[in-house]
Amino acid sequence: MTHDDRTARPPQQERAIRTRRRILECAAALFDMHGYSATTVEDITKEAEVTRGALYHHFRHKQAVAAAILEAQFEGMTVPPQALRMQELVDAGYLLVYGLRIDPLQRGAARLTMEQGADPVDRTRVMQLWIDFVVSILSEARKQGELRPDVDVDRASRYFVAAFAGVQNMSQAFTNRQDLDEYMTDMWRYTLPAIVSDDAMGKLMVAPERGAQLARHGVVLAS
Amino acid sequence: MTHDDRTARPPQQERAIRTRRRILECAAALFDMHGYSATTVEDITKEAEVTRGALYHHFRHKQAVAAAILEAQFEGMTVPPQALRMQELVDAGYLLVYGLRIDPLQRGAARLTMEQGADPVDRTRVMQLWIDFVVSILSEARKQGELRPDVDVDRASRYFVAAFAGVQNMSQAFTNRQDLDEYMTDMWRYTLPAIVSDDAMGKLMVAPERGAQLARHGVVLAS
Repeated sequence: MTHDDRTARPPQQERAIRTRRRILECAAALFDMHGYSATTVEDITKEAEVTRGALYHHFRHKQAVAAAILEAQFEGMTVPPQALRMQELVDAGYLLVYGLRIDPLQRGAARLTMEQGADPVDRTRVMQLWIDFVVSILSEARKQGELRPDVDVDRASRYFVAAFAGVQNMSQAFTNRQDLDEYMTDMWRYTLPAIVSDDAMGKLMVAPERGAQLARHGVVLAS
Repeated sequence: MTHDDRTARPPQQERAIRTRRRILECAAALFDMHGYSATTVEDITKEAEVTRGALYHHFRHKQAVAAAILEAQFEGMTVPPQALRMQELVDAGYLLVYGLRIDPLQRGAARLTMEQGADPVDRTRVMQLWIDFVVSILSEARKQGELRPDVDVDRASRYFVAAFAGVQNMSQAFTNRQDLDEYMTDMWRYTLPAIVSDDAMGKLMVAPERGAQLARHGVVLAS
């Protein structure tokens, strides 16, 4: 969420918020580059140019930094409401893709979620949050008759989240996510027809440039 | 590939093959558990109960061990030919899933392919081998009229490989891949109808137990 009540805050509090944000962004960049295990608290304090005391004022340990990055990624996901509920899912996907390209927090969170080695980080919790997010949209879509009758909402939602994780991982490996919007479009093109009714399919807008378009219209992307 | 010409080999050579295989399996298990970066050559020699000399006789360095694991995974993928070419893709998926549950080499290879941190390992090369494998099947399927006309074979193939990677990653996180056959079924169910013609869809066999069935009938799973 963005805050427009900054003027109401005392300067110290504002500084603390900025410092916390800087720690998160620098830690996310390091996690993205080197992974969770290979990044130390000292690496983070150096990168963020803060003292150990400042870091420990905000976070109890490295694990708490990682948890905050994962929370921030999720909190930032707000999509404009649409008459066609499946459009909200498509938009959320493109916004996430856009965020992954411009926001270090999103990139760090993506690697934390994917990395088998980041065991102290509860990545299943984040996966579950994403699955719940998709379930809520698909459940509404079902009520509106946008889904094919044989679709299992829970399993389809789980599949969407899993496939997206794989898609962003491959795009990261090949082009450092520069073509992730194309991958996203392929995912919609080769998955939605099996899930969405023909009528709703005919109304859906699926296009690589949608993330940037939505972002330009003032949609919040990240915390 | 399996070899039935063992009797023709001198005992020393046989021992060398066994040692190499043990090194690969132990290294794969360690990579699967701790990741590439966190696993040292010493860890591998200890786990495999071989001397450093024995390991370096077979592999120049840790990177060569990882490369051999990735090769072995790919070489082992042979599926029985089918009149319906898309059935071969479905079968390959289920065989891979089955292999990931029973074969440490497959599990190690999966993590090496997914892990952003395993940079000295050329994971894009392995991804590309898998994409090429799917392209070859989809190209044949296209010739036989099994695909929807608007499907882009290259991009659909890339998407299959990416989505599978995500699916196995999520199943690993939640259940250590115990329910990967269900994830695989969801992937087929929620992707194939967008790619395969209605006629071919009606003939495809998609079922979680297919991997075990194929394996029982003597199909080779891994190197």
